[in-house]
Amino acid sequence: MRTVYSGLVDESFIGQTVTLYGWAHRRRDHGGVIFIDLRDREGLVQVVCDPDRPEVFATADKCRNEYCLKVVGLVRARPEGTKNDNLISGGVEVLCHELEILNASVTPPFHLDDENLSETTRLTYRVLDLRRPQMQKNLRLRYRAAMAFRKYLDSHGFIDIETPMLTRSTPEGARDYLVPSRVQDGCFYALPQSPQLFKQLLMMAGFDRYYQIVKCFRDEDLRADRQPEFTQVDIETSFLSMDEIRAIMEDLMRTVFKEVLDVELANPFPVMQWDDAMAKYGSDKPDLRVNLQLVEVTDIVADSQFKVFSGVKSLHNGKVVALRVPGACTMPRSEIDAYTEFVKIYGAKGLAYIKVNEAARGREGLQSPIVKNLSDDELAQIIARTGAKDGDVIFFGADKAKIVWDSLGALRLKIGHSEFGKSTGLFTPGWQPLWVVNFPMFEYSEEDQRWVSCHHPFTCPLDGHEDKLLTDPEHCYAKAYDMVLNGWEVGGGSIRIHREEVQEKVFEALKIGKEEARQKFGFLLDALQFGAPPHGGIAFGLDRIATMMCGADSIRDVIAFPKTQRAQCLLTQAPAPVEEKQLRELHIRLRNEPKKEHDIAGQ
Amino acid sequence: MRTVYSGLVDESFIGQTVTLYGWAHRRRDHGGVIFIDLRDREGLVQVVCDPDRPEVFATADKCRNEYCLKVVGLVRARPEGTKNDNLISGGVEVLCHELEILNASVTPPFHLDDENLSETTRLTYRVLDLRRPQMQKNLRLRYRAAMAFRKYLDSHGFIDIETPMLTRSTPEGARDYLVPSRVQDGCFYALPQSPQLFKQLLMMAGFDRYYQIVKCFRDEDLRADRQPEFTQVDIETSFLSMDEIRAIMEDLMRTVFKEVLDVELANPFPVMQWDDAMAKYGSDKPDLRVNLQLVEVTDIVADSQFKVFSGVKSLHNGKVVALRVPGACTMPRSEIDAYTEFVKIYGAKGLAYIKVNEAARGREGLQSPIVKNLSDDELAQIIARTGAKDGDVIFFGADKAKIVWDSLGALRLKIGHSEFGKSTGLFTPGWQPLWVVNFPMFEYSEEDQRWVSCHHPFTCPLDGHEDKLLTDPEHCYAKAYDMVLNGWEVGGGSIRIHREEVQEKVFEALKIGKEEARQKFGFLLDALQFGAPPHGGIAFGLDRIATMMCGADSIRDVIAFPKTQRAQCLLTQAPAPVEEKQLRELHIRLRNEPKKEHDIAGQ
Repeated sequence: MRTVYSGLVDESFIGQTVTLYGWAHRRRDHGGVIFIDLRDREGLVQVVCDPDRPEVFATADKCRNEYCLKVVGLVRARPEGTKNDNLISGGVEVLCHELEILNASVTPPFHLDDENLSETTRLTYRVLDLRRPQMQKNLRLRYRAAMAFRKYLDSHGFIDIETPMLTRSTPEGARDYLVPSRVQDGCFYALPQSPQLFKQLLMMAGFDRYYQIVKCFRDEDLRADRQPEFTQVDIETSFLSMDEIRAIMEDLMRTVFKEVLDVELANPFPVMQWDDAMAKYGSDKPDLRVNLQLVEVTDIVADSQFKVFSGVKSLHNGKVVALRVPGACTMPRSEIDAYTEFVKIYGAKGLAYIKVNEAARGREGLQSPIVKNLSDDELAQIIARTGAKDGDVIFFGADKAKIVWDSLGALRLKIGHSEFGKSTGLFTPGWQPLWVVNFPMFEYSEEDQRWVSCHHPFTCPLDGHEDKLLTDPEHCYAKAYDMVLNGWEVGGGSIRIHREEVQEKVFEALKIGKEEARQKFGFLLDALQFGAPPHGGIAFGLDRIATMMCGADSIRDVIAFPKTQRAQCLLTQAPAPVEEKQLRELHIRLRNEPKKEHDIAGQ
Repeated sequence: MRTVYSGLVDESFIGQTVTLYGWAHRRRDHGGVIFIDLRDREGLVQVVCDPDRPEVFATADKCRNEYCLKVVGLVRARPEGTKNDNLISGGVEVLCHELEILNASVTPPFHLDDENLSETTRLTYRVLDLRRPQMQKNLRLRYRAAMAFRKYLDSHGFIDIETPMLTRSTPEGARDYLVPSRVQDGCFYALPQSPQLFKQLLMMAGFDRYYQIVKCFRDEDLRADRQPEFTQVDIETSFLSMDEIRAIMEDLMRTVFKEVLDVELANPFPVMQWDDAMAKYGSDKPDLRVNLQLVEVTDIVADSQFKVFSGVKSLHNGKVVALRVPGACTMPRSEIDAYTEFVKIYGAKGLAYIKVNEAARGREGLQSPIVKNLSDDELAQIIARTGAKDGDVIFFGADKAKIVWDSLGALRLKIGHSEFGKSTGLFTPGWQPLWVVNFPMFEYSEEDQRWVSCHHPFTCPLDGHEDKLLTDPEHCYAKAYDMVLNGWEVGGGSIRIHREEVQEKVFEALKIGKEEARQKFGFLLDALQFGAPPHGGIAFGLDRIATMMCGADSIRDVIAFPKTQRAQCLLTQAPAPVEEKQLRELHIRLRNEPKKEHDIAGQ
């Protein structure tokens, strides 16, 4: 066995003979002596192979990058002036007594220090990519985070109970991955989108506190930060109020951040109503590091001559909203034009703005194509309500609420994270957690022509809102809460429905007929009959949290073997064609001619 | 929040007012007072509802079994003579001040104390079944075992790294569960049968020590103790010898048993060669609690007149093996006849035996239909080698080795676990772990007409056996080891091949052509080229270990939501038909007419 990991050989080992295992990170011949940087998961140590020992020297001479080596040698202090303060082992070197090549390597397609690798190269040669110190660090940090979650939950009486991976397709939600059954002709399992129903059943079964760090699956077109399989820290508890659950969950998150990063998150987390989050940030996951807020001015311009503003009252939930950006008068016109294009992505028709050059001069001190359309009084009220100072720019959105929120919410982030924002104090680095609570129960789906659940159909309405389920679904709010960190939803949860009659009402609101509900969710409705306890929970996105903790750009940097945006594994070439015999056993056939092997390989 | 779990209210709470949540396990009306046994995951406490408090009493009067309740009350000592020593709370009761019905229950289909429930009833009403104290205990013990594994591995530098669930089908092995790809028409993912290749890739990527508690999948016809999805404690490490790996793994198992059951397993575990295990126990997973051994007598009877015995030399690897059962002369003839039928299950044509009534009298003291066919010398040698004493019975198997081992190995267990065996000291209760090591590399598959891997194709041959891979596969042995406990394989592992040329030779021995190997395992062969380290590992079957620890009859008793032997979930009715639209998106169609809904429901 090794004496110690290479990366951990420090001054305390001086004078000791150590056995090390690792890889030749770099080999250099310097003044007739061969130096090998031996690398293992903990880091590097310098190994010195002297010509005095001809056998060692000859072996070292054959050694190339990524050769797998066993080294036995004496630890000694490095000569003065050659120390490397960046390494734990930077003060020492190992004088090699025995060197064994455990396995040779062909020349790697890239050096591990190369930081300019394409993602395709990295995923194709993932084994080499994972040897890079940054990836080693990321996956170990991810592990430490997962373990910190487990330790906290364990010490608070939560029990990890495994729920099935082969389960039932319930089309309410995202698209399922299906698994054909061999035993039951024509039947399919689905991979779970989350263990939602099972964890509720576990509460009904009296386990009281449950958790699981578990793979979930969604067959959706992948955005940059989505994977077909992702990992949730899934939690559920009985007999606690929304406040009590949130208190435990934010304590959990504080503990994890403290333990893994030695970072102190706010205590307590700020709590924001969903309505307020939308009004002030245009988002249900506001990034509070950005010091900008939206201000609604619909009432001020309700009767304005400017039809773009006053016209919103004819829209369903039309709004005029302002975003004041301090000091933005210095922005070049080209930047403002770019923002005008930017908000169009979110459906905005344009981006009205007012530059506040000198507010004291009234209309004369303002510069904007729209100033002429607004009355003195309207202008004065806008300046007053937004609190605009000389040098500020006020941007406006005027449309249906969703478009205004989406576009100005995105603009707020864009400006906050821009060079301008960072250099003018609109962005405060750090960790900004908060709760967003009391989400709407439903949102209207134009596609399905019906109300659909914002969270999921098992979410409990706020006390007193049960009656609105059918009569006023738009204004029915839910006991739902999201944990938000730096603009990302890191966890989402709710109190669940524990009464059969409420659950049936929600299905009705969602236009899931009685028979359909019974067929798909009969087991849930049955279980609710047997004294189901009040319960609720949350699910944290571990991939996302690990990515943020690592400061990585992509969740693919905290997953050992991720898939591409085409849901492909470049390493194993999954998915792949299978044998006809396998399909026959599963009672399915392909709709289209199978591709030839070489077509597949050449994709 | 609750003050304490109901089951944990003990004398230390006397005089305190406590808040409890739970279920009415039983309600009885006794002398005008209502007693409710309130149950939660920790157990029961007796709640007393007095007519002095009319509101409480009226609510208690409405209360029925499995109602979900909140209780606030004063803990007091039970009257002398009414204590229940079986409960932690047996010395106290809670005088109820406030009683709230959180949720009513319809009458449950069975009482939770009922121990005679069919498995179908239990799985159909799994939520109620899981409320039973035994199931609560089982799943919590399983959790504690899993957590004990984690803690040990964590403290020994092993890192949990998640491997993909959507991976590539590699038909070498059991049947895969397939997942059709929506993005890649005609292509399929497979659910992993184990993370074998990925954990090897992680070693090649330099993570050094890996573990994962992970779901694996096999689409096989289910035997009593198999599930389509099962859980492995999967472990891999680099740079360690077989002995070093086994030392860590048995220390792990000792620690888990000590921590969870307070049981001390042997230190060290006995180590048995596979050849010896087969010769002495007819099994590669001997149950050492049974104090019986097989003895080979092929040589003694090689030239016997008795053709049943001497004829085995014409068979490939034919053997005559004896099993001496001390004191079995007292067995009724009917029991011996039953064993004769029993061994036929394993392919034996019959079960010869000799009753040793009085060995000193030679042939006269022996009783058996076969004695007349054996010479005095043969009989004397058999008595001597088996060590038979007066009163013993010697059973014989004579056939190809596999049939003899299977049948006598099974007979050994059958007798050892029988009433006879237990009453005559042939069975020693307790925990009997051991290692079985040096398995053959291959076994011959009559079905496939080729050699197949005993363990898997990535197992390293014993030092010096590489040359036999192609020239003498039958006698090529492997660096493979199983951990066996009380006759069950609880873990299996091996040192893996870390050299490309050895791996290619094994594929050749398995008749996996170069092109096929490249197509299916190219990513492994590629990775081996880049200085792959020597590595090896093990996988433990968590379901099996938990079952043994719980003393349960079936792994279904340690899985929250198991499947039936038809791979069906009786609770959710998975697998189930899906919508045509879903199949279209996946580019597949059914081969046969879909069943009608009511056919499905009626299955």
